Amino acid sequence: MYPDSIKNLIEAFKYFPGIGEKTAERLAFSVLDLDDEKVDLFVDSMKTIKSSIHPCPVCNTLTENEKCNVCMDQSRNQKVLCVVEDAKSVFLFDRLGSYHGMYHVLSGLISPLDGVNPEDIGIEKLVDRIKKDHFEEIILAFKPSIEGETTALYIKKILEGLNITISQIANGIPMGADMEYIDALTLERALTDRKKIS
Amino acid sequence: MYPDSIKNLIEAFKYFPGIGEKTAERLAFSVLDLDDEKVDLFVDSMKTIKSSIHPCPVCNTLTENEKCNVCMDQSRNQKVLCVVEDAKSVFLFDRLGSYHGMYHVLSGLISPLDGVNPEDIGIEKLVDRIKKDHFEEIILAFKPSIEGETTALYIKKILEGLNITISQIANGIPMGADMEYIDALTLERALTDRKKIS
Repeated sequence: MYPDSIKNLIEAFKYFPGIGEKTAERLAFSVLDLDDEKVDLFVDSMKTIKSSIHPCPVCNTLTENEKCNVCMDQSRNQKVLCVVEDAKSVFLFDRLGSYHGMYHVLSGLISPLDGVNPEDIGIEKLVDRIKKDHFEEIILAFKPSIEGETTALYIKKILEGLNITISQIANGIPMGADMEYIDALTLERALTDRKKIS
Repeated sequence: MYPDSIKNLIEAFKYFPGIGEKTAERLAFSVLDLDDEKVDLFVDSMKTIKSSIHPCPVCNTLTENEKCNVCMDQSRNQKVLCVVEDAKSVFLFDRLGSYHGMYHVLSGLISPLDGVNPEDIGIEKLVDRIKKDHFEEIILAFKPSIEGETTALYIKKILEGLNITISQIANGIPMGADMEYIDALTLERALTDRKKIS
């Protein structure tokens, strides 16, 4: 029904996660209304990102340089390491501006059900780095899920006896949330992890 | 915070309607996980659509050929013309497979508040075509809105005395809808436009 070039672009938009038929159609048609200049800019950005971005050899964060900005920054606290599940998390945490330690990015989380084992997410590289760089604290910052818990427990076990503080970011009720809309598991965790007001 | 090439792609994704900061971020990161082959296909489709698609000189539908498929198809009913507000509507109606007449695409709808006047949406070309091609019925298929009503009334007035049947697609309660969720205006329209069961 659609001319071929529209049909092809609709199919191409569906490569992206979370974009279905209707959204792909809407986006494909909107391209026709975009200035040629913007289409060129978009196309160039798509090509550039694939050629210029690569993982930092030290921490696996995405970077355009030989090493990432965090690993190059000598003013940061070299004794604290925040371990995250993907590169995006690094940008999320760093945007806060309150954490000044180092990062290490895993390739996802351990998930035996999906066939993802410790060796698949780069645990070995993490452990080597921790042993070599003499960190004093490791902060595990995974999403609260079975996979996150499994990965945290696995790392904790592997680092046993190394005299390093291992902590995990807090789970609980998000700021500004309405108590009645919080699920039971979160509520239970918030209760268990309660802290003294001094 | 983000490397430049990621930042640029996020900005570029925001050119598309309905894509905000968060979605643009998600899409930009997902490009990094796409195969090079898919990125190339996507980029090629973007470029091709801009160079190969143009409005049909007769009806303004988008086409890759000299004239669109509908205008070239001599087996269609040349006496009925369905007037729509954009090219996408042509594909929506034609997908139904139940309408076999011709189409004419306006460049939007008359909207005095937004400074869109009859001459801006190509009414003159429509009227010229109607007079030249001797249509017997004109079906106005605009979205139910003040702009749609204004445009329909304007066209009706301009074609007065030409001995052409002018009709408008039905408004009412959509099939399968729950009556309680239908707005008052639609309900009222459905009541006014009631039809006899013979």
